[in-house]
Amino acid sequence: MAKRTGEKHQVILDAAVKTFARSGYHRTRVADIAREAGVADGTVYIYFKNKEDILISLFQDLMSRFVENLYGELANCHNANEKLATVITYHLTTLANRPDQAKVTQIELRQTDQAINEGISGPLKSYFRLIEEVIDEGKMQNLYRQNINTRTARKVVFGAIDEVVTCWVMSSKHYELGALCEPVYEMLVKGLRQ
Amino acid sequence: MAKRTGEKHQVILDAAVKTFARSGYHRTRVADIAREAGVADGTVYIYFKNKEDILISLFQDLMSRFVENLYGELANCHNANEKLATVITYHLTTLANRPDQAKVTQIELRQTDQAINEGISGPLKSYFRLIEEVIDEGKMQNLYRQNINTRTARKVVFGAIDEVVTCWVMSSKHYELGALCEPVYEMLVKGLRQ
Repeated sequence: MAKRTGEKHQVILDAAVKTFARSGYHRTRVADIAREAGVADGTVYIYFKNKEDILISLFQDLMSRFVENLYGELANCHNANEKLATVITYHLTTLANRPDQAKVTQIELRQTDQAINEGISGPLKSYFRLIEEVIDEGKMQNLYRQNINTRTARKVVFGAIDEVVTCWVMSSKHYELGALCEPVYEMLVKGLRQ
Repeated sequence: MAKRTGEKHQVILDAAVKTFARSGYHRTRVADIAREAGVADGTVYIYFKNKEDILISLFQDLMSRFVENLYGELANCHNANEKLATVITYHLTTLANRPDQAKVTQIELRQTDQAINEGISGPLKSYFRLIEEVIDEGKMQNLYRQNINTRTARKVVFGAIDEVVTCWVMSSKHYELGALCEPVYEMLVKGLRQ
């Protein structure tokens, strides 16, 4: 059983983000990640089974911190509209500030591999649940239409934000992603409103 | 230079959709596609350079017919709202009726490979342009807000529809995708409206 904690665990994951972003998942070898991390190849295998395990662990690590921090931000909000704006701003600015991470989440993680898809579905679900809680709160606060199907609305909200990030990554990031927070919020909140 | 037309060209592409959907792009060999198409392996190479060329040609073929047929449908619409509803309905019902094609476009085509990404970006752009024309028409007809950035709005519209399809494919298609046309339209049109 691979170790799942420790200082080097995080160092290897950080190195993996850089290496996957630079060379692409398929062209990266575990040895490249070890070199970037400044550890011996064997050390990587103390923590991870293989390259696929690194990619999945990486996403689990990123998403669990992302969702935890975002819940922290939401605690300061007074209603569902503020929360929706916070979700959009947090999502877009986090990735705008971490272009390597954005490249990995928007491109390298879109794998056709079944095991990888299953490995990332759990962490994604916790983010989906967060968005659905915001929509349900908006319905309870009479801000959003009662007849909105929460799950469908979550797909629209997540899909819109995700596509905005993907286009930015594909465009080689030639514009400010953060500038899109307001227009995206505007469209989505009007779409949910009474 | 590979041949780009002819009866067998289409037969091979149709076989490729089935084979990619069944086995996944990476596990599929050109010989598998040839067998599914009922042609000799060598015949495939008269039409296509390699497996990657088949995947890209497949998407170009699907998207050019998709966009052409959709423009045909839009010709019967009286305003931008009807056109937006038609885009959503056409997109969702086309893929609902062709689960193999949906699997390929939502999963197998999300490749990290640069050449594949470049090969599919052209055909995708023609669909993006169609959506942007509908949004611009809605602004001209005073149905949609004048200050909406057309490109950003297109990302929200496309991202929402695309995510709805991806979730359906990932869920093993346990519900009617067509039932989501109306709620998705409702959210998006309200998001664009004055």
